Amino acid sequence: MRAVTYQAPGEVRIEERPEPVLGHPDEAIVAIEATGVCGSDLHIYHGRVPVAPGTVIGHEYVGTVTAVGDGVTRVAVGDRVLGCFHVACGSCTACLRGDYHRCERGRTFGHGATLGSLPGTQADLALVPFADMVLRRVPEGMSADTALFAGDVMGTGYHAVAHAGMKAGDTVAVLGLGPVGLCAVQAAVVGGAAHVFAVDSVEQRLDLAARFGATPVHLTEGDPKAEVRGASGGRGADVVVEAVGAPAAVDAAIGLARNAGTVSGIGVQVGRSEMNLGLAWLKGLDLRLGLANVIAHVDRVLALLEAGKLDPSPLVTHHMKLDDAVEAYALYDRREALKIILTP
Amino acid sequence: MRAVTYQAPGEVRIEERPEPVLGHPDEAIVAIEATGVCGSDLHIYHGRVPVAPGTVIGHEYVGTVTAVGDGVTRVAVGDRVLGCFHVACGSCTACLRGDYHRCERGRTFGHGATLGSLPGTQADLALVPFADMVLRRVPEGMSADTALFAGDVMGTGYHAVAHAGMKAGDTVAVLGLGPVGLCAVQAAVVGGAAHVFAVDSVEQRLDLAARFGATPVHLTEGDPKAEVRGASGGRGADVVVEAVGAPAAVDAAIGLARNAGTVSGIGVQVGRSEMNLGLAWLKGLDLRLGLANVIAHVDRVLALLEAGKLDPSPLVTHHMKLDDAVEAYALYDRREALKIILTP
Amino acid sequence: MRAVTYQAPGEVRIEERPEPVLGHPDEAIVAIEATGVCGSDLHIYHGRVPVAPGTVIGHEYVGTVTAVGDGVTRVAVGDRVLGCFHVACGSCTACLRGDYHRCERGRTFGHGATLGSLPGTQADLALVPFADMVLRRVPEGMSADTALFAGDVMGTGYHAVAHAGMKAGDTVAVLGLGPVGLCAVQAAVVGGAAHVFAVDSVEQRLDLAARFGATPVHLTEGDPKAEVRGASGGRGADVVVEAVGAPAAVDAAIGLARNAGTVSGIGVQVGRSEMNLGLAWLKGLDLRLGLANVIAHVDRVLALLEAGKLDPSPLVTHHMKLDDAVEAYALYDRREALKIILTP
Amino acid sequence: MRAVTYQAPGEVRIEERPEPVLGHPDEAIVAIEATGVCGSDLHIYHGRVPVAPGTVIGHEYVGTVTAVGDGVTRVAVGDRVLGCFHVACGSCTACLRGDYHRCERGRTFGHGATLGSLPGTQADLALVPFADMVLRRVPEGMSADTALFAGDVMGTGYHAVAHAGMKAGDTVAVLGLGPVGLCAVQAAVVGGAAHVFAVDSVEQRLDLAARFGATPVHLTEGDPKAEVRGASGGRGADVVVEAVGAPAAVDAAIGLARNAGTVSGIGVQVGRSEMNLGLAWLKGLDLRLGLANVIAHVDRVLALLEAGKLDPSPLVTHHMKLDDAVEAYALYDRREALKIILTP
Repeated sequence: MRAVTYQAPGEVRIEERPEPVLGHPDEAIVAIEATGVCGSDLHIYHGRVPVAPGTVIGHEYVGTVTAVGDGVTRVAVGDRVLGCFHVACGSCTACLRGDYHRCERGRTFGHGATLGSLPGTQADLALVPFADMVLRRVPEGMSADTALFAGDVMGTGYHAVAHAGMKAGDTVAVLGLGPVGLCAVQAAVVGGAAHVFAVDSVEQRLDLAARFGATPVHLTEGDPKAEVRGASGGRGADVVVEAVGAPAAVDAAIGLARNAGTVSGIGVQVGRSEMNLGLAWLKGLDLRLGLANVIAHVDRVLALLEAGKLDPSPLVTHHMKLDDAVEAYALYDRREALKIILTP
Repeated sequence: MRAVTYQAPGEVRIEERPEPVLGHPDEAIVAIEATGVCGSDLHIYHGRVPVAPGTVIGHEYVGTVTAVGDGVTRVAVGDRVLGCFHVACGSCTACLRGDYHRCERGRTFGHGATLGSLPGTQADLALVPFADMVLRRVPEGMSADTALFAGDVMGTGYHAVAHAGMKAGDTVAVLGLGPVGLCAVQAAVVGGAAHVFAVDSVEQRLDLAARFGATPVHLTEGDPKAEVRGASGGRGADVVVEAVGAPAAVDAAIGLARNAGTVSGIGVQVGRSEMNLGLAWLKGLDLRLGLANVIAHVDRVLALLEAGKLDPSPLVTHHMKLDDAVEAYALYDRREALKIILTP
Repeated sequence: MRAVTYQAPGEVRIEERPEPVLGHPDEAIVAIEATGVCGSDLHIYHGRVPVAPGTVIGHEYVGTVTAVGDGVTRVAVGDRVLGCFHVACGSCTACLRGDYHRCERGRTFGHGATLGSLPGTQADLALVPFADMVLRRVPEGMSADTALFAGDVMGTGYHAVAHAGMKAGDTVAVLGLGPVGLCAVQAAVVGGAAHVFAVDSVEQRLDLAARFGATPVHLTEGDPKAEVRGASGGRGADVVVEAVGAPAAVDAAIGLARNAGTVSGIGVQVGRSEMNLGLAWLKGLDLRLGLANVIAHVDRVLALLEAGKLDPSPLVTHHMKLDDAVEAYALYDRREALKIILTP
Repeated sequence: MRAVTYQAPGEVRIEERPEPVLGHPDEAIVAIEATGVCGSDLHIYHGRVPVAPGTVIGHEYVGTVTAVGDGVTRVAVGDRVLGCFHVACGSCTACLRGDYHRCERGRTFGHGATLGSLPGTQADLALVPFADMVLRRVPEGMSADTALFAGDVMGTGYHAVAHAGMKAGDTVAVLGLGPVGLCAVQAAVVGGAAHVFAVDSVEQRLDLAARFGATPVHLTEGDPKAEVRGASGGRGADVVVEAVGAPAAVDAAIGLARNAGTVSGIGVQVGRSEMNLGLAWLKGLDLRLGLANVIAHVDRVLALLEAGKLDPSPLVTHHMKLDDAVEAYALYDRREALKIILTP
């Protein structure tokens, strides 16, 4: 089968790989109908997230089940399914607490040996461990473009807001309007935020955020703090979603939050950083950090997608063929696309 | 000043009463601009909720502050305000836990001696104890029709959903589409329910619910259980709001809820009742009962009203003069109105 | 192998049965070292919970793993384990929400066809589906008498208190001091209740509750309401555990709870009942009903048992041989025992 | 009256001050029976927390009410009371959310102009605004030594654990065994932690922690990480309390926490710091920072003190006279005392 593989910084390739075979009763095999190129794929592409040359990459996918192990009960051969970007066992201590994103046997598709050596989904076929935990049937009539978001980007946006305990009537600020930030905007709007301020410096992204119901605020030309305070009686945001993944954005989030508010840090943070811990302490903030727990949210996210209350389709800017993956990565790297979908 | 008083079952009257005077530093006096007639006023009108003849009734109100005690800081003379239907001290054990609706010194406007002998708001002036807890400034440009709901009916609808822990993506059923049920429908929609089923037998109310974003289900001609199950993979509703106030409706709610779901019993229950406790136990339900904690919610409800995300104005079917209160009660009693607003 | 089977009301028998064999990759087989006789076994014994004649009964167990399927990873052959009274898949919608006790594929050991036709554990061997979810290794040095409680009675006592959201410093009342009520007393004490009132009419049980740190209150000779109010500034209990399983006990619980308090109804309720719904509504109570979610709690319960902070061993009044099960049931039926442990 | 005043770094003085008079209906005056010297007083003493020369300091106190304003209802003249270290109005937006520690009109005793210019309690008399929120009657028979902790240090220890959502059966680590850390140890033990690891480098403090039920671990001679992992199946602590107030301690806390665990940062953090944000993100931690919300907890803390389940009396190492305050500060500065109580 064909598969997109990482070769070296700035270099991916389409290669032939053997088809996966079932090795464990809880596994399934999915024939890929659509697979996305995501911001975290770009980290791999740039070599910032190191994977061995030859690693099959990709982790967003919709497809049809072609084989299941004896232990699989929620999906069957022939089902059209979407999947989550990582797998979880359901029975370890972390999973039993509902922390599926910290599963002790968790593995992430297409992220190399450090995240479990699970081949990626930018391929003709993907092997899916713990299929009952990871796969869901695509609701009747839902496009692949929409369904593919449930297990990754929209699940992350939903998590950013829900895990922060946002309540209907709250004021929310979202910093960074990449696909995750834009999905967080949608999740905040759908969850009943009275005000959502969407902060970035790219006009096209600000426009999308406005279309999704947020008040767009240009990072440098606007005044996020004044806007947030104006809408909240001077207090600041109840919830600030940090979707940039930079220490400076954490500081900005701390600055925008109200006293005793919550900063939801969904953007990737790496290593040691200097930050305004003193201000966070003074304000009595709650900083909730880390990867999204998409398996916990996927059913509710799918219900909202099916009801049309969440709709990521405007984020899809490009459809390309799997065979054109090299070009897709180059294009994505030039920041010409928000979301590229690859099809066979 | 003029005041609407209860006289006997089926009889109210407009009477002259002395103007209220400040007696405690935390009090305010409000000149009433608009006051609603509510379903609970009808309980008094019918004598089901007993109050002494001559009691001034009414508990929904918008007006202008004409006097404040020394201890009042959140509102000032001249402010246009709305108020909550009951008062709470903010410092007793119940209030310190956030249970303002169970305040140890709580009193309800216009409900006679059993609820604290606090004169009602269907009058020219109202005395408001604990004004900082109870009053809020009406946002610029908001109509009295809208603002008046924040401290009573919409606060109750919001509570019904929020206190039940509804999450974005949940399936919700609302039983009973009086003003409270219809506000619960709005709150469920605004909080991101994927599906809201609104159950009643009055077409006009079902139509309003549909207009608010719910799926209307006729109680007898439709099949609520089948509808709810159809939308939830056969499981039932995550949250069922019981807004009828009858044991049979509690049973219906238990029947519609999913395993480990929540029944939010906002409808008034009185005395001993037979109910399907066994089924509730088998399903592992959480039954959350009682009056709404509107003081806890009023700021978020106001923010949503101001943002236009909640909008109770379609519920207002009649505007009448305070002097026509006798006719207003008769009309309400004939079920010809959903919400009547009385103005001076 | 030998197995205790239900035959008819009041009649159990030791019978020979074929040894279980693995049929699914997630199963394990456990050689039983100790198995308890529980109050719910008595419901079967009396025919109140109907099971087919010949059904193998029992659901409390400690033993050694003798075989595991390919999918089992948390336990291995030779491990000394304890198990939960029911099984759960970990991947259905209910499990993914953490509601393991409402698993869509859940089955209960030894409760016949209505609860999944899973043979009981009062036998030489037991087949355990979903072994990774259900079994835990017995901590080094822990007696079978202690370990056996983790997956059933103590898990239920812990649930009764934890699911009610008890906080350190709360006032708790426990109605009914059978094994579950006594374990709830221990759980309330260990969780930091400032006061635990334990209500029953059997002196021996009241004595045990006192030994566990509660204030014993005789149901008829004492005055539970006065005691609870005296300790809580007149307010009532923050949490009331109903561990009797009768509508009258639910009413008593409603009477003891403070305004906006919680009634944790862990005692089995069957069918329609008359209860004081009006008082529960007036107080604004939260009634949390149903079977315990022991799989969610078993790791924390085990940690507390291992640390010696929970200790159910005083509840074990009798050790008998599996071959003497007929006598054990008769003795238990005469209420001469609190907990009987059967060993091979 | 006499009052302890700050003069310059390292210099306090006993000065005569006019007696306070009631200026607002919600105020009370308390004749001080006992007042503590606290670690935060030392920050002022050193000039690290700047206050104007002449500022009356101190914020821990027990005494007798000598006057109350018209609006005060929970305490009366003659009542023996304890108070919280800060005041809160109960009716601002922050208070209505239960965030009393972030009250918009909050003021802290004895901390100068930046925290509201509220004279301290190391004096013969103290003026207490919002007395119903701040004061509680001392339970019959409770010593001043014990009661004084409820509104400050023990309230903070309770908060550190409760605000982190600790559950019975959890593994907890406490970093820093000053009075706050030692109170957090007690709170963790009373709340049912299966294991509490108490980390410091002072033997006397480690001994106290052991006496309170924790496993003492010497910061440098022991191996906190190995101990915590050993008790938690290799996972790490569910809750880590950072009670040192240094960025390095935050890093240590991040290192000890399990995946998806909580760090409760109760130690004061000032300004910008470098920290291991990347590891916190990778682990998916929740960092809950800031001052304790003691008003929210004081009733439960008092109930536990009265029941003898919390007992801070071993922390009191010195009793001195108010007139000897100069010596008391010098002694405390030499770290010869854990807690000094000043009496008239």
